[in-house]
Amino acid sequence: MSQKVLVYKKFPQEALAPLAQRYELMQCEGRRPRERFSAAQLADVRVMLTAGGLKLPPEMLDDLPGLGAVICYGTGYDGIDLAELKKRNLALGHSPGANASSVADLALTLMLAATRHTLANDRYVRNGQWAAGEPSPRSSFPAGMTGQKIGVYGMGVIGRKIAARCVAFETEVGYFSRTKYDLPYTYWPSLEALAEWSDILVVAVRAGDATRHAVNAQVLGRLGENGTIINIARGSVIDQAALVNALQRNVIAGAGLDVYETEPHAPDALTALPNVVLTPHAGGQTAAAHKAMQDCVIANLDAFFTGRGLRYPVT
Amino acid sequence: MSQKVLVYKKFPQEALAPLAQRYELMQCEGRRPRERFSAAQLADVRVMLTAGGLKLPPEMLDDLPGLGAVICYGTGYDGIDLAELKKRNLALGHSPGANASSVADLALTLMLAATRHTLANDRYVRNGQWAAGEPSPRSSFPAGMTGQKIGVYGMGVIGRKIAARCVAFETEVGYFSRTKYDLPYTYWPSLEALAEWSDILVVAVRAGDATRHAVNAQVLGRLGENGTIINIARGSVIDQAALVNALQRNVIAGAGLDVYETEPHAPDALTALPNVVLTPHAGGQTAAAHKAMQDCVIANLDAFFTGRGLRYPVT
Repeated sequence: MSQKVLVYKKFPQEALAPLAQRYELMQCEGRRPRERFSAAQLADVRVMLTAGGLKLPPEMLDDLPGLGAVICYGTGYDGIDLAELKKRNLALGHSPGANASSVADLALTLMLAATRHTLANDRYVRNGQWAAGEPSPRSSFPAGMTGQKIGVYGMGVIGRKIAARCVAFETEVGYFSRTKYDLPYTYWPSLEALAEWSDILVVAVRAGDATRHAVNAQVLGRLGENGTIINIARGSVIDQAALVNALQRNVIAGAGLDVYETEPHAPDALTALPNVVLTPHAGGQTAAAHKAMQDCVIANLDAFFTGRGLRYPVT
Repeated sequence: MSQKVLVYKKFPQEALAPLAQRYELMQCEGRRPRERFSAAQLADVRVMLTAGGLKLPPEMLDDLPGLGAVICYGTGYDGIDLAELKKRNLALGHSPGANASSVADLALTLMLAATRHTLANDRYVRNGQWAAGEPSPRSSFPAGMTGQKIGVYGMGVIGRKIAARCVAFETEVGYFSRTKYDLPYTYWPSLEALAEWSDILVVAVRAGDATRHAVNAQVLGRLGENGTIINIARGSVIDQAALVNALQRNVIAGAGLDVYETEPHAPDALTALPNVVLTPHAGGQTAAAHKAMQDCVIANLDAFFTGRGLRYPVT
């Protein structure tokens, strides 16, 4: 049996290297498979590898008559049309929790950089203003983490890891999610209530129709002028136009963002702001996370190619 | 009795505001007291307030015949000549641990910013390179915190708070200090051994003759080409010329620095480097830390002015 893998998304080569050693990777870099490969080459492709955050148009599947499974490199699968896969009798696999620690680390990276004004401080030292005795770029002392109220929106694997990290900084953690869990954090019955209580609001919820633009102008108003928002989930969860407006008008104090509504595009109105820290959807982009995600992909592929189904199916 | 307080160091006004409500502050902003005030004004000054990181030349004390105590705003007192104070029969007070959480938070802020390449990532998003599909500024994935070996040099209040925060990031913590404590971290018998073991070395040791230039070229060589150094203690602990050299030659991977040998001056050779994150001795510069330090200063002053000695003496 062929161990061909059609790679739909354009991945960094270092992400694919361990897979290329084991399977025949056919990379179409986001294009239709038939634009890159002949029908004969595609006939016996049984697996597609992609990333869950990338929209997978159903017509991409039309070129692969032998397809049996779609595997997402990473945890999310919001770009995949589940009904379409079911209709075509295709299995869906992912890498549950594999990048959770890395994403949670980036949430704290953004939180600390935004609230301690790291970008402005670094510039102040580098451009000689500190040495020249010029006033500090901050207008007043930042609050500091001690005693701050951190609201976590979404209490899955990543939300829990963020909460555990925040507690170590002597903060108080609250959360809102559809389900109330047996966890040592204050549960709030709505996102509005959580935002009202929070000094820092961290978006860690799974993306989907139910959470699209959940963080809107009203929620940002509740977070308030001393509040900071962090998003390491998906850009769709925040109404980005409302966020830009809130940041411009100091409705909230600042933001740390790793994800955007239309990636890889952060709008000019956002990149012009001094009170934001921006990273290029780098949450899962560590060697540790890639190793864990690759291990899941390999486990999924090996199980599938030996007729045992997927090791980590989306259920 | 007068409640005059001679303020030697030039502090930000917001740091002094709560003290100005209670005492008569006489600010000399680092100049000799007699240059700013008359002998009559200085005759009944019984307390000097300063910061421990600032060198206090003994002649500054000559102008204050009624002096009974020197109080440091903050934890450190490395700028104070203890023998000189003893000779003059002056008490010394400080704010033990008041800024420890804030300083420990900044250690993690610098650690995460340096190892996750926050400065370069933010630029990459802002200047449109990400949107244009240009290659990422990183040459390979950063390691991520998971499983990293964090070496803490100095296990006082701040060192312990740094260690507790690092553990939450699923790292392994080791330490070296003069004393081996009953703590759940691996003790290393020397700084060289700690550096050899560490992926990230955090300097959290008290400054003084015993630790001056303790982090030298040899220690940096042991830390190695994938190693990162963080310093939130004092600039004197690191041989800064050796550090610049190690960063320029990629003997180590990067650094996050809040303190420098001669403040407020970070040398051009350092500020020109891409693989460093620099902050302007901002470790204790949070509202939470200032509140705690002010509370200690007020407790020291109130106790002293009512004849009960200092509340937090340096022992």
